[in-house]
Amino acid sequence: MIYGAGKTAAQIAGIIRALVDAGQPRVLITRLDADKAAEVERLMRDGAATSAGAGSVAGSADAAGAGSAGSSADAAGSADAADVVALAYYDVAQLGVVGGIPEPDGAGRVVVAVAGTSDIPVAEEAALTAQFLGNEVVRLFDVGVAGIHRLLASADELARARVVIAVAGMEGALASVVGGMVSCPVIAVPTSVGYGASFGGVAALLAMLNSCASGVSVVNIDNGFGAGYQASLINHG
Amino acid sequence: MIYGAGKTAAQIAGIIRALVDAGQPRVLITRLDADKAAEVERLMRDGAATSAGAGSVAGSADAAGAGSAGSSADAAGSADAADVVALAYYDVAQLGVVGGIPEPDGAGRVVVAVAGTSDIPVAEEAALTAQFLGNEVVRLFDVGVAGIHRLLASADELARARVVIAVAGMEGALASVVGGMVSCPVIAVPTSVGYGASFGGVAALLAMLNSCASGVSVVNIDNGFGAGYQASLINHG
Amino acid sequence: MIYGAGKTAAQIAGIIRALVDAGQPRVLITRLDADKAAEVERLMRDGAATSAGAGSVAGSADAAGAGSAGSSADAAGSADAADVVALAYYDVAQLGVVGGIPEPDGAGRVVVAVAGTSDIPVAEEAALTAQFLGNEVVRLFDVGVAGIHRLLASADELARARVVIAVAGMEGALASVVGGMVSCPVIAVPTSVGYGASFGGVAALLAMLNSCASGVSVVNIDNGFGAGYQASLINHG
Amino acid sequence: MIYGAGKTAAQIAGIIRALVDAGQPRVLITRLDADKAAEVERLMRDGAATSAGAGSVAGSADAAGAGSAGSSADAAGSADAADVVALAYYDVAQLGVVGGIPEPDGAGRVVVAVAGTSDIPVAEEAALTAQFLGNEVVRLFDVGVAGIHRLLASADELARARVVIAVAGMEGALASVVGGMVSCPVIAVPTSVGYGASFGGVAALLAMLNSCASGVSVVNIDNGFGAGYQASLINHG
Amino acid sequence: MIYGAGKTAAQIAGIIRALVDAGQPRVLITRLDADKAAEVERLMRDGAATSAGAGSVAGSADAAGAGSAGSSADAAGSADAADVVALAYYDVAQLGVVGGIPEPDGAGRVVVAVAGTSDIPVAEEAALTAQFLGNEVVRLFDVGVAGIHRLLASADELARARVVIAVAGMEGALASVVGGMVSCPVIAVPTSVGYGASFGGVAALLAMLNSCASGVSVVNIDNGFGAGYQASLINHG
Amino acid sequence: MIYGAGKTAAQIAGIIRALVDAGQPRVLITRLDADKAAEVERLMRDGAATSAGAGSVAGSADAAGAGSAGSSADAAGSADAADVVALAYYDVAQLGVVGGIPEPDGAGRVVVAVAGTSDIPVAEEAALTAQFLGNEVVRLFDVGVAGIHRLLASADELARARVVIAVAGMEGALASVVGGMVSCPVIAVPTSVGYGASFGGVAALLAMLNSCASGVSVVNIDNGFGAGYQASLINHG
Amino acid sequence: MIYGAGKTAAQIAGIIRALVDAGQPRVLITRLDADKAAEVERLMRDGAATSAGAGSVAGSADAAGAGSAGSSADAAGSADAADVVALAYYDVAQLGVVGGIPEPDGAGRVVVAVAGTSDIPVAEEAALTAQFLGNEVVRLFDVGVAGIHRLLASADELARARVVIAVAGMEGALASVVGGMVSCPVIAVPTSVGYGASFGGVAALLAMLNSCASGVSVVNIDNGFGAGYQASLINHG
Amino acid sequence: MIYGAGKTAAQIAGIIRALVDAGQPRVLITRLDADKAAEVERLMRDGAATSAGAGSVAGSADAAGAGSAGSSADAAGSADAADVVALAYYDVAQLGVVGGIPEPDGAGRVVVAVAGTSDIPVAEEAALTAQFLGNEVVRLFDVGVAGIHRLLASADELARARVVIAVAGMEGALASVVGGMVSCPVIAVPTSVGYGASFGGVAALLAMLNSCASGVSVVNIDNGFGAGYQASLINHG
Repeated sequence: MIYGAGKTAAQIAGIIRALVDAGQPRVLITRLDADKAAEVERLMRDGAATSAGAGSVAGSADAAGAGSAGSSADAAGSADAADVVALAYYDVAQLGVVGGIPEPDGAGRVVVAVAGTSDIPVAEEAALTAQFLGNEVVRLFDVGVAGIHRLLASADELARARVVIAVAGMEGALASVVGGMVSCPVIAVPTSVGYGASFGGVAALLAMLNSCASGVSVVNIDNGFGAGYQASLINHG
Repeated sequence: MIYGAGKTAAQIAGIIRALVDAGQPRVLITRLDADKAAEVERLMRDGAATSAGAGSVAGSADAAGAGSAGSSADAAGSADAADVVALAYYDVAQLGVVGGIPEPDGAGRVVVAVAGTSDIPVAEEAALTAQFLGNEVVRLFDVGVAGIHRLLASADELARARVVIAVAGMEGALASVVGGMVSCPVIAVPTSVGYGASFGGVAALLAMLNSCASGVSVVNIDNGFGAGYQASLINHG
Repeated sequence: MIYGAGKTAAQIAGIIRALVDAGQPRVLITRLDADKAAEVERLMRDGAATSAGAGSVAGSADAAGAGSAGSSADAAGSADAADVVALAYYDVAQLGVVGGIPEPDGAGRVVVAVAGTSDIPVAEEAALTAQFLGNEVVRLFDVGVAGIHRLLASADELARARVVIAVAGMEGALASVVGGMVSCPVIAVPTSVGYGASFGGVAALLAMLNSCASGVSVVNIDNGFGAGYQASLINHG
Repeated sequence: MIYGAGKTAAQIAGIIRALVDAGQPRVLITRLDADKAAEVERLMRDGAATSAGAGSVAGSADAAGAGSAGSSADAAGSADAADVVALAYYDVAQLGVVGGIPEPDGAGRVVVAVAGTSDIPVAEEAALTAQFLGNEVVRLFDVGVAGIHRLLASADELARARVVIAVAGMEGALASVVGGMVSCPVIAVPTSVGYGASFGGVAALLAMLNSCASGVSVVNIDNGFGAGYQASLINHG
Repeated sequence: MIYGAGKTAAQIAGIIRALVDAGQPRVLITRLDADKAAEVERLMRDGAATSAGAGSVAGSADAAGAGSAGSSADAAGSADAADVVALAYYDVAQLGVVGGIPEPDGAGRVVVAVAGTSDIPVAEEAALTAQFLGNEVVRLFDVGVAGIHRLLASADELARARVVIAVAGMEGALASVVGGMVSCPVIAVPTSVGYGASFGGVAALLAMLNSCASGVSVVNIDNGFGAGYQASLINHG
Repeated sequence: MIYGAGKTAAQIAGIIRALVDAGQPRVLITRLDADKAAEVERLMRDGAATSAGAGSVAGSADAAGAGSAGSSADAAGSADAADVVALAYYDVAQLGVVGGIPEPDGAGRVVVAVAGTSDIPVAEEAALTAQFLGNEVVRLFDVGVAGIHRLLASADELARARVVIAVAGMEGALASVVGGMVSCPVIAVPTSVGYGASFGGVAALLAMLNSCASGVSVVNIDNGFGAGYQASLINHG
Repeated sequence: MIYGAGKTAAQIAGIIRALVDAGQPRVLITRLDADKAAEVERLMRDGAATSAGAGSVAGSADAAGAGSAGSSADAAGSADAADVVALAYYDVAQLGVVGGIPEPDGAGRVVVAVAGTSDIPVAEEAALTAQFLGNEVVRLFDVGVAGIHRLLASADELARARVVIAVAGMEGALASVVGGMVSCPVIAVPTSVGYGASFGGVAALLAMLNSCASGVSVVNIDNGFGAGYQASLINHG
Repeated sequence: MIYGAGKTAAQIAGIIRALVDAGQPRVLITRLDADKAAEVERLMRDGAATSAGAGSVAGSADAAGAGSAGSSADAAGSADAADVVALAYYDVAQLGVVGGIPEPDGAGRVVVAVAGTSDIPVAEEAALTAQFLGNEVVRLFDVGVAGIHRLLASADELARARVVIAVAGMEGALASVVGGMVSCPVIAVPTSVGYGASFGGVAALLAMLNSCASGVSVVNIDNGFGAGYQASLINHG
């Protein structure tokens, strides 16, 4: 995995190439904005042209998640050539994936519950990270607690989860309600969605740390990757 | 009304006497601990003995709320004599009442929803303040969001409210869920219940200020009195 | 109602169309900047042209508030055609209104008291929200406490309110003084106006939460919408 | 489970009796200080004497953890009679257990890594909670990062864990180092150990939330119970 | 002047003796609680008995302020002997004065405006400090902004001030209103009066720093001494 | 005086015209950036041309302070015509002055002590405000405490002050050292100069509030205007 | 070294005995209050009596620092017997020393500069720690910056230091002034001395972190031990 | 040394010229961005051309550090002319150097340990500052604690240090682990690397202040210069 923020496209392309050359079948790049992704792809294609002499290097995001998340997963291109390294770019989650999303091999399912529309980018980072790591992921969008019946309508989906990732900004109450509904671990992700006294996600973070439900732990504000990663560890444990 | 914290029993007794002499039929004393209440009562009884020559001065807390709140309202004594000033003491709420609780004369009902057992003192301060100001009050205890079905079971009571007071510590999520269930104003009271990153009620305060439900406003941490007072204003508007 | 921040013009226009098609007579869009509003209007006009074949789709903000607020309410256009969906845009409040401002049907009047010129955008968000929800609104501008006589000169207006919204940044003292002058509920809105140790509205928020006047509750920093919404609930209770 | 803080001994004894009567085989009471535990035990014994007429009611803490933790698990008594409800008290963890610690039935082992001596009470709360919930627990004491070789010497134990609970105060660095050594989930528990700029555990909390290692999530300051509970969920998933 | 907190009675008595021996006519001891004051007086009396052989050493607080402040200035004894060092103790302000309060010699008057009863100790520290330093002091008690008419009724007194000290806790709004009423410097003293989100005086401190009135500066929370000292500098400038 | 931030050039020009028409001889505009100042000047010139028919309307900053501050006071133009309203612009202080700087008429001198080069804009705002209000101002630049001898070399200037304004960012220590050197009031102005743990001026603000020197009060971060205003009140008291 | 806070006297005595038995010639116990020290000494004497059969076990604090610090170093007893482990107790610094203070063997001198009387306990912890580790220590008391001439009078002592420890609470300005006077490393120790906006030492901590002088680094609030320890490392480098 | 932030290129060039003319052989400019550096160089070249009539004025960064830091030290030009002032620019560290890096003359070596790639700019500021001041510097990149074996592999380099500078953002754990591995002073530099609850470096700062290892002191967030400066003082002590 590569943390894309603060690295140049050239650095990222170089690391990808090195990892692939070392036999790494798949690479995930997080916090990768669209411009940099395009530049990385261009560098990889040029590099491939230079070193391999042929083949297109377009991305392929035919993967899991695209269906359920709708517009949240947009492949940066289409792969039609063999043995070149392709970068699929997911713009909502700001993730790049090389080598594609594998078949799920975890013990159960990861459910990602998302409070509001503005929380979706962080939720997608979590969901796609989990998919990248071999997990079946179910997304529950727009289940914020102010409309509690939408969340209750998803009770069956939640009950079937092996681990739930609860993503919410503002007052972050989703984690507590979900925590009371399930008997599996809940990983809470506070988001920086909000204004004023949300203090960039601190309100949600504190709410989640003080959850009155048992079985809830918390990751950093906007850290969808961390939640997806730990969910995968739990699901493969 | 008298804010009892930081005043001596003698000062409180003096103010009560002055208010009663000025024709004030009822007096509410907040943040009054049990020892000080006993001392105030003794001073008032002695003063009455001195000035009026006769009569017992025991308190009378036969009032509303005692039934539904169970042990939360314990009268400091029993009034059996006329025309003396009696102090009823409610130890859970740390309130003293002179002149008794009046008949409700508000337009509707005030519902006080309480997340956990530890939040009851603040909730009782709110509920008794509202009763003292002439409101019918319904208490919903133990409706914290980690057990969402208990809250949902109270949906009818909530729907009949003219104003809801939502009292919660820790992550303070109750206000958001209640706010989404009702179409009347919700006054949220964060409590200092919790530990660690609850920061003495700050986590709940921030959560309530960032409620994703519309129609929620907030008072200071542990300010049950303020919530009961504003609820009464709304109910008598 | 639609929270406009973080949504694209296309998304907003789509939601408006869906709501109108579902029979919703009026729609309020908050946190809508001027550029996005123009784009929304264009999309709606094009959509109308496409689906209805005729008619102009300009906005109509002939509504309440424009008079008293002077330049704070500027209609984005003028409606001269029937049965098309028109968007009126209020630039000071950054609000869009579809379907116009209705006749007031609340029990009393909502008074919006505003400390300083810089607080007007938040105050207008509150005032127009209340108007949109069917309330008669009186605006009191420039009644900050450093010029206490201007506020006192408005005592009669305040006394006639069924609910007061007090909007102030910097030290947020307006809520306390107003709270002491009226016997109706006061909803305090801290604004992010100020610099240095105002900490983006935190100073005003804390002041309002600690108001020495009874009957004051508080909403999030800059949350004019929330104050207007709750004021309407109180005025229609 | 019962959260003992803020409840009287009589309330706790009553709840225990009710749970046992309802067929609950085991009860865990957290945040129970020694005096209250003794009082609870006395009440339970008297109650048993009254209702059952015979038998001693002493506690039995023969359980897991006592061996490895040395003095950290001190039974409040020795059970030598059948069918009475006995309370075993663990003074370091401030936990009471009714019904004993069960045989482990989880999928793997929970390793509790503890930075310093002062962190042991929180760690024991985590460890005993996990044991109470049917987990085999391995304790690694005094593996703070300032003596990195002690931690490295435990690498094998860590590698065999299905989930690790990392308990640390002060700078909370243990979670990051452990997170880098294992490929299972790490639940980090910041403790309030420290002074000055530790701000009652905030320094450790922030460090853990910002861990540079993947796979780490965090619970509230001093929340050993929450960590043990979630670890058990993961280990039984 | 001597800062009494954190010094023993013996140390204080020693410093007083040294200052008096060095010709210092008057000494002020701040943050001196009643028990320590009594001990200091005893030590000074004994020391005087030892060194001078005769005379009583009681305090004399016949001074300014006693009249207007009522019970706030209670002399610790009565001086009836010449040439011994006497300590007058003011218990509300927790101040000790040796050498008495001098005749005022400043250019004008210092007005101390006090929001609530609980703020009086800090206000008295300010007022007595100013008197000790040779200023005529006028006290305005109970002029908190929630009862704005009481403050307005003091407008003439305020107008005659050369400097105003505004003392308030909770939301600290007094400084802004006073600042708008006068054309002399205002020194604002936030107090730690309040609870919850007052954060020990921080809410009042921030409000005062953000005062919308010009001419206001601020001292530390509860720093009555500092305000009185600077007021005296201004009044003697 | 006009607070320029958040007002348009047209609004400012309008207010200036109104004030001048009302007979106000001088107007100070604070927080006025260079572009807006040029636009204000243009509007005023055009307005003058329109209404008066003749004369240039350039600014004149021949005033006090220009000499000692060097480049900190740059007139926006040169006045060569009578009876038109001219705007002098001081770019370092971001102040505009209409009507010129008057002759000093205060009782003494205001000394502005400035810690570092980066603090000069705030210091100039203070100094020019004081000059605008009729005070003789002495500037002491670059007297930060890390080079204590430069400050000591200014001891005589400091001793001759009637009031000192101490301007410093970073650790804000200047106020304490100056406070110990003089026997007149010191108004401390924390600036937002610094990075990291200066938190935008909070470190300096806290240091100044906790000054171990008596006679120091504090204004908001970067509030040079407030310090200059209060200094003038003191100097004219 | 042993961190005494949070350990029982028995634990401390045990650790001391173990260290001494292991050949450790000297042991330092920090954060040891007087009662616990007496108990430790008693336990050690009894243990010695038991194991060795003879000899007194009194402490011996004839060491460095006692002279210059005056009353700050009080030995808990006097050692007059051989080969028993004696505990010398320094009550101001709350330190216990076993094995005595060694002869200095560092390259230069450590100067401990202390702002105020209340800072002395922390300063003594630093000074005695450095002495215990073999450093010559010079103490400069009462050199707070509000009386800058006292600090300047110590310029020669400061100039001769190899490392300076600057100890100050309140505004913590001492570190900056000292940092500007010397050309050796300065270790700044913020203390929790102060009230109100000192926030338990945070004001001093921030000031020291933002020191405008080069060559200053900072340790935790009240961490005299840490400063003394690092100073010794520097002096023995 | 010149702090470049907030100074214009002209000011910087002027100060450099003045220092050089005064005989200063070397000048270090910190916080100098690339554009300003180019402008400074141009101004210096032009100035040289004007005053000296000949010679190129390009920079020369052939110095220490370029080798080990790779791309972190890029000379802004190449010096090929005598007696003109040349500016070497190090873009990663944002430092300008006039007069070149001298031969090391310190007693030992300064080791700069760096947690992650994003921390390198701050680390280079520290390293180059130390080199500029005459120290041999060893850089250890990418030794963050999540990959503890990389740090352990550098144990020998660390053991040979006379002083270590530990640079880390996020959770800042590096300082504690390094502090436990060495017996020389460690200067910890928190960086602003991170997001969410890193709060711009506060998480790392607090962690470092609370280090459980002895011998660690801390400088301000991102203050590489300060760490390099103090390290040099220690190494030349």
